[in-house]
Amino acid sequence: GAGASALILDHVSALGSETLPLASVLGRVLAREVRSPVALPPWDNASMDGYAVRATDVAKATREHPVALPVFGTIAAGAETPPPLERGGAMRIMTGAPIPQGADTVIRVEDTDRGVDRVAIFDARDASRNVRPAGEDLAEGHIAVSSGTVIGPAQLGVLASVGAATVEVRRIPRVGILASGDEPVDLDGFDEVRRGRRIVSRNSYTMRACVALSGGEPVNLGIVGDDRELLRARFLRAREER
Amino acid sequence: GAGASALILDHVSALGSETLPLASVLGRVLAREVRSPVALPPWDNASMDGYAVRATDVAKATREHPVALPVFGTIAAGAETPPPLERGGAMRIMTGAPIPQGADTVIRVEDTDRGVDRVAIFDARDASRNVRPAGEDLAEGHIAVSSGTVIGPAQLGVLASVGAATVEVRRIPRVGILASGDEPVDLDGFDEVRRGRRIVSRNSYTMRACVALSGGEPVNLGIVGDDRELLRARFLRAREER
Repeated sequence: GAGASALILDHVSALGSETLPLASVLGRVLAREVRSPVALPPWDNASMDGYAVRATDVAKATREHPVALPVFGTIAAGAETPPPLERGGAMRIMTGAPIPQGADTVIRVEDTDRGVDRVAIFDARDASRNVRPAGEDLAEGHIAVSSGTVIGPAQLGVLASVGAATVEVRRIPRVGILASGDEPVDLDGFDEVRRGRRIVSRNSYTMRACVALSGGEPVNLGIVGDDRELLRARFLRAREER
Repeated sequence: GAGASALILDHVSALGSETLPLASVLGRVLAREVRSPVALPPWDNASMDGYAVRATDVAKATREHPVALPVFGTIAAGAETPPPLERGGAMRIMTGAPIPQGADTVIRVEDTDRGVDRVAIFDARDASRNVRPAGEDLAEGHIAVSSGTVIGPAQLGVLASVGAATVEVRRIPRVGILASGDEPVDLDGFDEVRRGRRIVSRNSYTMRACVALSGGEPVNLGIVGDDRELLRARFLRAREER
């Protein structure tokens, strides 16, 4: 009950920390917050494949009265800084690619005739849309992952994206599992189970697995008979051995 | 969508199996059913601390009119086969201990005066109760864990209890993770992120963690630029390397 929990927690303190490569911290608890040295995304970028334009240039586009604009090149994902967008023009742009200065809109490719030198735009619904501003996910210097967070797949991805090649995490708790009783035997004593009057200490196996799945390191302390002094001695020895 | 899943599954076959010690199969898939060489529990046993009696001897016990019975010894958990229970008598018994022949009831200790040589029984509510029959959980020769089962903590405990020191499990799937694009770089290319126009291949880290948590072995196939032939070549090389 609550009394037992409180008694145990009163005798437990936080573990120390260690610094490990990112590849080996899945399931660990972050011991020191990680801040981002860069803005994420690092630049204003397109959230659609399409054409970067000015909203004012396309505001009246409809299927019946398309707006046609000259296309001044293509901006790929991973491209260097593109030239500014000339007024009344468009640039082909890929998802994630940097938005050229002057553009405030990406018209999705499905709303165009996919033109190369000149593009016809059939719909204004994307006006002033589909631009992800730099730092929208994370501003430079802000906390990417807080101290105390359990590092799962999502946190690993965030830590990678801010360049955290190593991180400081809590040490893994070692958890001793001690079975008590005159009845249970270990697996290598199964012959005694066949002969009757003994059972395998199955909870030892289940508990060790639960500890492992919870991020701990199970330590097998074996089986001790129903004897207060033997139990006490085994606990004391375990404390010395740790 | 479903088309992509079907296309992939059409090219996937079940992995082979390997035989491993029970201590190292957490999270694996059992490749061959395990049957129990013993009944579980192995003997009729008490589900309460109390007194083993015959139901007919205690049927009229009440707080106002207790039934007093002579106590013919104590049966501990892990005890050898006890002598049969004499008519009109009781034996102290511990949870899990074997029920003596003739007894069909365990009166919980709270309903007695805890007598040593002679016990007074105050309540008949446990008449014909608190006896777990041998084989109640699992009959001898029956399937303890079926083929195809993912081995979690509970399954580990069951496998231990039937003496499965080693088990046959499916091999771990190796799952290659390949990032594509001209934009993503690995963590050791983070200087390029700082200079702009590149991002860390964060999904590679997230996907590798997801594969590991799903019981697979992630294999890092790196990053390949946006080029059909390069991608094809990398896939073919990965197939040769596996």
